[in-house]
Amino acid sequence: MYAAMGVLGLAPTETTAPVPPTGGGPSPAPFVPPQRSDFTLRGGSAAKVLVLGAGVAGLACAYELGKAGYDCTVLEARDRVGGRSMTLRGGDVVSELAEVPGSGAHTSAPVPPLTAGTPSPGARGETQRVTFGEGTYFNAGPARIAQWMVTLDYCRELGVPLEVFVNGNAAAYVLTGGMRAPARVRTARADAYGYISELLAKATDAGALDTRLTGADKERLLDFLSHFGDIGASHAYSGGERRGYRVDPGVGTGAELGPPPPLTDVLSARLGRVLTMDAGYEQAMPMFQPVGGMDAIVRALAARVGAARIRTGTRVTKIMNRPDGVEVTVEGGASLRADYCVAALPPHLLAKIPGNLGADVQSALATPVPLSAGKLGLEYGRRWWEIEDRIYGGATETDLDIGHIWYPSYGFHGERGLVVGYYNTSQDAEAYDRLRHRERLRRALVQGAKIHGRAYAKGILAAVSVAWRRQPHIEGAWVRWPSMSGFSLLQRPAGRVYFAGDWLTHLIAWQAGAFESARKVVTELHHRVLKES
Amino acid sequence: MYAAMGVLGLAPTETTAPVPPTGGGPSPAPFVPPQRSDFTLRGGSAAKVLVLGAGVAGLACAYELGKAGYDCTVLEARDRVGGRSMTLRGGDVVSELAEVPGSGAHTSAPVPPLTAGTPSPGARGETQRVTFGEGTYFNAGPARIAQWMVTLDYCRELGVPLEVFVNGNAAAYVLTGGMRAPARVRTARADAYGYISELLAKATDAGALDTRLTGADKERLLDFLSHFGDIGASHAYSGGERRGYRVDPGVGTGAELGPPPPLTDVLSARLGRVLTMDAGYEQAMPMFQPVGGMDAIVRALAARVGAARIRTGTRVTKIMNRPDGVEVTVEGGASLRADYCVAALPPHLLAKIPGNLGADVQSALATPVPLSAGKLGLEYGRRWWEIEDRIYGGATETDLDIGHIWYPSYGFHGERGLVVGYYNTSQDAEAYDRLRHRERLRRALVQGAKIHGRAYAKGILAAVSVAWRRQPHIEGAWVRWPSMSGFSLLQRPAGRVYFAGDWLTHLIAWQAGAFESARKVVTELHHRVLKES
Repeated sequence: MYAAMGVLGLAPTETTAPVPPTGGGPSPAPFVPPQRSDFTLRGGSAAKVLVLGAGVAGLACAYELGKAGYDCTVLEARDRVGGRSMTLRGGDVVSELAEVPGSGAHTSAPVPPLTAGTPSPGARGETQRVTFGEGTYFNAGPARIAQWMVTLDYCRELGVPLEVFVNGNAAAYVLTGGMRAPARVRTARADAYGYISELLAKATDAGALDTRLTGADKERLLDFLSHFGDIGASHAYSGGERRGYRVDPGVGTGAELGPPPPLTDVLSARLGRVLTMDAGYEQAMPMFQPVGGMDAIVRALAARVGAARIRTGTRVTKIMNRPDGVEVTVEGGASLRADYCVAALPPHLLAKIPGNLGADVQSALATPVPLSAGKLGLEYGRRWWEIEDRIYGGATETDLDIGHIWYPSYGFHGERGLVVGYYNTSQDAEAYDRLRHRERLRRALVQGAKIHGRAYAKGILAAVSVAWRRQPHIEGAWVRWPSMSGFSLLQRPAGRVYFAGDWLTHLIAWQAGAFESARKVVTELHHRVLKES
Repeated sequence: MYAAMGVLGLAPTETTAPVPPTGGGPSPAPFVPPQRSDFTLRGGSAAKVLVLGAGVAGLACAYELGKAGYDCTVLEARDRVGGRSMTLRGGDVVSELAEVPGSGAHTSAPVPPLTAGTPSPGARGETQRVTFGEGTYFNAGPARIAQWMVTLDYCRELGVPLEVFVNGNAAAYVLTGGMRAPARVRTARADAYGYISELLAKATDAGALDTRLTGADKERLLDFLSHFGDIGASHAYSGGERRGYRVDPGVGTGAELGPPPPLTDVLSARLGRVLTMDAGYEQAMPMFQPVGGMDAIVRALAARVGAARIRTGTRVTKIMNRPDGVEVTVEGGASLRADYCVAALPPHLLAKIPGNLGADVQSALATPVPLSAGKLGLEYGRRWWEIEDRIYGGATETDLDIGHIWYPSYGFHGERGLVVGYYNTSQDAEAYDRLRHRERLRRALVQGAKIHGRAYAKGILAAVSVAWRRQPHIEGAWVRWPSMSGFSLLQRPAGRVYFAGDWLTHLIAWQAGAFESARKVVTELHHRVLKES
């Protein structure tokens, strides 16, 4: 097997020391951070750089350039660093824009009716004060890191301790496709795999694959299916221990859940998306999170950059290329000059800032469409999902408008715990965007009760919701490129202004994208400085 | 879907508060620990109990009985508590028996030849001194806990902090079925799911399932398969991002691994067992481990029992029921008397201890067959599996005699790390049992190099191996019951002597089995004391 890989030089052979055979390989040109000695060797000196935006991309640029002594100043419109990498704790304050940008409540499609949680057309921007207890945190933005992502390298370099983020849990629930009641993921999976295996085994037995498979391959396929679907030699799926137990085994044998529902019911549940959620390269288990909150990364970056170099509460109002540098004006009228600029703002905000970057650049910046996503953090005074449901981390998957319910991957067995009551995108998020916090909460609790019952709404100590489209100076969860022409243009600087962000990569919505983009810009800017000096 | 569950009263409905719908449910008669007030209410007083064996079962009995004031003394032949729950650290000493019990090297099948690591027929018991660095630990026995297991309840009750144990990892490798080179789990899984889906979709398209499925069900099946196998609308599997990347996506799109090997190669790899390793109820992700080592549980139990009540280095030589109590003789000739005894030793050792428990009990104790398992801990000075292979925890699965290679689920990004170089059972473990440590190590490194290359043998700071059949006073990893008649007999006390251990449950080899058995014995013994007093 996998002989072709050997031919391509990708796989180890017995006679040579293997290289990591497949996947997760580094880029062919590994990143080399700028360093002070680059100037000793090649002449010149580090330049002055204005970095616009103290999100992951901006901070990473300032951090990497700083290694070579660049004089960076980071301008951030918000009153905190990190951008979308926002971890909320007790004492934090979250303000929202009065209107969803570009789609006033009156012009949007109405929120689908539900018993609780009606739309509030006249909603005004509101401010939530977070009242979580000591130790509780809520990653309102990015929350998980794949093993192959460069984000983990930054965690290593910055000394940010890691722990596992549980991205899928056999004990969590599924409620999709009009299922009358939630089932455990393990149960739904066992049933789907079981019937798939039964159908294919019987088709094989009936000769339907005779033109495709040799006799030996048929035997191997049937052996695979007997394991894969737990269907044994009968080739008929009849349930089994993988479905779970009504009474767990112990001194006694336990009592299994019993026979599976009919095939037609399993097919109707539309489990394909849910059961393959963690099959993709970005979502495969295990995933990771910084201990204590995702913002440990941006806080470590900001500390390395230095507080004195970061100006929060400083909104950029104009960006001008000048013959000998860049000039950036900020709210209040002051202007700052530097040799170069890295614009690491969301493109839809950058597009609105006046300047002389050129019509094609402005047009390219206006191309990406900001998308919506929302999250609700629910702090409970009792970890009932662990005690009663035996769910330790992971997610319940639904096709309700809440999308997922996440159980915390930290603080196991603690007194309190933070459940993500919804993490939704697209139209579902847009519906919640238009609601005030209290209405989002009520709606999410009605939905969550379909999985966890009425007790779901009880014992909540604190709650906070974030609608990313309504976050000032961010105005979106991430973007979509309707066409890719501007994507290439913005990979190049507009004069002395470079662009950086996850939106300029194929890792949109991931911190890894911001880091990869920052590394590219830093490399190019540094090479230019070395060359021009 | 899952309508049947509702009928059976197992599933929530919209009109009532759901109960946890499926699986993981508690036993119908929840355990109620004995407490001092039981005697206040019902009269009598706590009895004196001798507990034989300070493994999980014995310690749990003493701990639970202690809650009601029972005067327990625990006798342990080894010089440490915990039995098979053995976590090794720098400074520990591990001694082995000179011979594998009951199967002298001369009578056993020879170890299959391999370049390095030949059998040592004259092997004598050897002592290994563990030289791991600060912070490194090796769970030589149990290492993972499923969410539903009672072991987690004890962690909560005892305040033992938990973290995730990564039981499966998409980035780890598979080397089975004569594959010429290892593949990432994600790659093997994508190929298997892809081809399975293609075969079933094409059989469906060709009408092979027409008698089984309605038109609507066929559509739903094809929709499921398109997600499940990532085969799209063409119904042909041609690889994709789930296989992994040669160059990871970033600013560029990345370069996928390329087309999959032919179907016949994927079938030859015999992936059924490996890809369903974590499908079962006992192994499903996520699993858990105590922070700092599995022995945190037994140490916490021992602390609650009290050091003064535990006598290590005390081997039992005789167990006698007397008219008014039990009399236990220990090596050296001293005898101890108590009202009751709980024998929580491995059955194959208990069977050899003289006494008056009766011929049928002795015969039942001699029924379970001790089985072999072995583990090798390798401490490296550099976490190359994280840095180069991008593997953070989890296991590589092989059909080599090493079984699995485990990567550590703790200490991510640290300086050192502990890899389990083999965890094998059955004949594979028996082969390693017969070797001296140095030969086990050499053999395991030759095997591991088939996955990780020659570098696998480099940078090892310390290594220790445990052959459970050769562990004094344990002599086995766990047992198998060839017939279940004795199983029922030993659930009842022999006079005043009760029996406890994982071997008396349907959770053999799990600490949860030991706890469940302990709870049963404690409950019965306490009820008897309350009744008789």
